[in-house]
Amino acid sequence: MANIKDIAKLAGVSVTTVSRVINGHPYVSDDKRAAVLRAMKATNYERNINAVHLIKGKTNLIGVMVPSIKRPYFGLVVEGIAEEALKGNYKLVLIQTNYEEERELEALMMLKLKQIDALIICSKISDWDIVEEYAAYGPIIAFEDARGRNVSSIYIDHYKSFMEALTYLSGKGHRKIGYCLARKSGTSSRQREAAYRDFLKRSGESFDPDCVFYDAIHFEDGEWIVERLMTSLLVTSDQVAAGILACCNEQNLQVPSKLAIVSFDNQPIAKVLNITTFAIPLTEIGRDLFRKVMTREFGQQEIPVKLIERLTV
Amino acid sequence: MANIKDIAKLAGVSVTTVSRVINGHPYVSDDKRAAVLRAMKATNYERNINAVHLIKGKTNLIGVMVPSIKRPYFGLVVEGIAEEALKGNYKLVLIQTNYEEERELEALMMLKLKQIDALIICSKISDWDIVEEYAAYGPIIAFEDARGRNVSSIYIDHYKSFMEALTYLSGKGHRKIGYCLARKSGTSSRQREAAYRDFLKRSGESFDPDCVFYDAIHFEDGEWIVERLMTSLLVTSDQVAAGILACCNEQNLQVPSKLAIVSFDNQPIAKVLNITTFAIPLTEIGRDLFRKVMTREFGQQEIPVKLIERLTV
Repeated sequence: MANIKDIAKLAGVSVTTVSRVINGHPYVSDDKRAAVLRAMKATNYERNINAVHLIKGKTNLIGVMVPSIKRPYFGLVVEGIAEEALKGNYKLVLIQTNYEEERELEALMMLKLKQIDALIICSKISDWDIVEEYAAYGPIIAFEDARGRNVSSIYIDHYKSFMEALTYLSGKGHRKIGYCLARKSGTSSRQREAAYRDFLKRSGESFDPDCVFYDAIHFEDGEWIVERLMTSLLVTSDQVAAGILACCNEQNLQVPSKLAIVSFDNQPIAKVLNITTFAIPLTEIGRDLFRKVMTREFGQQEIPVKLIERLTV
Repeated sequence: MANIKDIAKLAGVSVTTVSRVINGHPYVSDDKRAAVLRAMKATNYERNINAVHLIKGKTNLIGVMVPSIKRPYFGLVVEGIAEEALKGNYKLVLIQTNYEEERELEALMMLKLKQIDALIICSKISDWDIVEEYAAYGPIIAFEDARGRNVSSIYIDHYKSFMEALTYLSGKGHRKIGYCLARKSGTSSRQREAAYRDFLKRSGESFDPDCVFYDAIHFEDGEWIVERLMTSLLVTSDQVAAGILACCNEQNLQVPSKLAIVSFDNQPIAKVLNITTFAIPLTEIGRDLFRKVMTREFGQQEIPVKLIERLTV
């Protein structure tokens, strides 16, 4: 297919002029515009122009509310969103919130003020009531359990998946199970803690705050986690699990005999290091979030997690 | 510090109303606005409002032109940019181009039409002449050698770094050196190929196209690369190197005796797998790109790469 340079050459104008014609920019003389259109016709450029016409009246910008893309978990979701955006030639406005309500509101306001066509919420701290209020102004989808809410969602039942992981570890004979989380507050963390407490109650054990590790986000966090000696760990990120494993190897701490590790996500690093993990298709979820918010398909969709047994349990 | 909810409560208005006052939105009644401002004063909220005033008259959006954030190399650069954006409460408009000129022009047009305050180019295919034409409309910085151009840049001398890697491999006694690249065209690829050809010429060897592997981007690409038996490989991504190493382990192919691998980037996966690599501080480069384009500091800055010797050579 002819590209913009071919057309510029054929029409005897600059690439910028061609771009201006395509984008409907006013400052192009009539004869130059005619030359460009003739060249486009001659090179069968119409299809691309139609794509441009289709999106007229829209901003072509999709908002993505995300605490921070530096967290591997959200990085993967945003990757999937970006993959679909690239296919459809949409631009993404990344609104990183650091879980601050004011920034989340800014994202919602952008939807209301039509600065973005739709909003994807990867994670949030604001109440659902606030989000629902803005759902009237444009399509919103969230990567969080929104059952009973007037907002579409794709979600993971973190209570169920954590309970499954705990039962698996316990079935393998492991006791004194600790767990690592990215943050203390938030819906997912609350669901996980509830599963952990219910599991302990069932096993007749009492809750020990020393078994819970917060702010475990990156590979480097493995180091301080290993220092507090547990016999088994539930880790909510493969990156952190890999960091823990690397420290165990350095200290000649046998895995799984001295420390059993079960992780979440199933990133490539978990495969390479043979980490037992629960697969969560984060990138695929990102793609689905984008597709659903663009088609304005309403509904709540649960994503099941899947145990991948390897060598760390 | 008081948050937006506290202020809403104190002022007896909704959170949305507070947000509107902060954002200077017109549809707020005078008495509500006064109540919000009183509540803000009472709770010492001024500092945040000042931050909002400071950015008035700007879009608060920074454009990022990037082929695709799914490529680990650019993913890391964007992570660094995003980290700085988060600190300064700037939003990023991700313009993924897939190396299509039309999409790159769209990004440049956004700068011209003041839809973004500044533009960071992570990689591009368009001629420098076109980019320079748009530099008049707002600050642009590129992660590509822009010496002699009227555009700021932070860059890596890929000729120099590739020559260093080849000399290192050859010094360790390796012959028949292959190399893996993300794409065939582009400035970086041309610089690397030039280094490779010059190196062969110096060693009195002839160029063998079978020794060059294009489209090596992801971990999964390791598989097909291993199938074409080389005795040593220069890999421009740790992810690909890790994939190659995983395949070697599966096939009991001894590294480095049967296949020596030297990689680039020094991502965590290279550390875990003990891959010899040239460290490129991609995330730090992302942070610098953001800081420089925001301060409008003009100049060309070369980033040196650094050999990290581990176990794959």
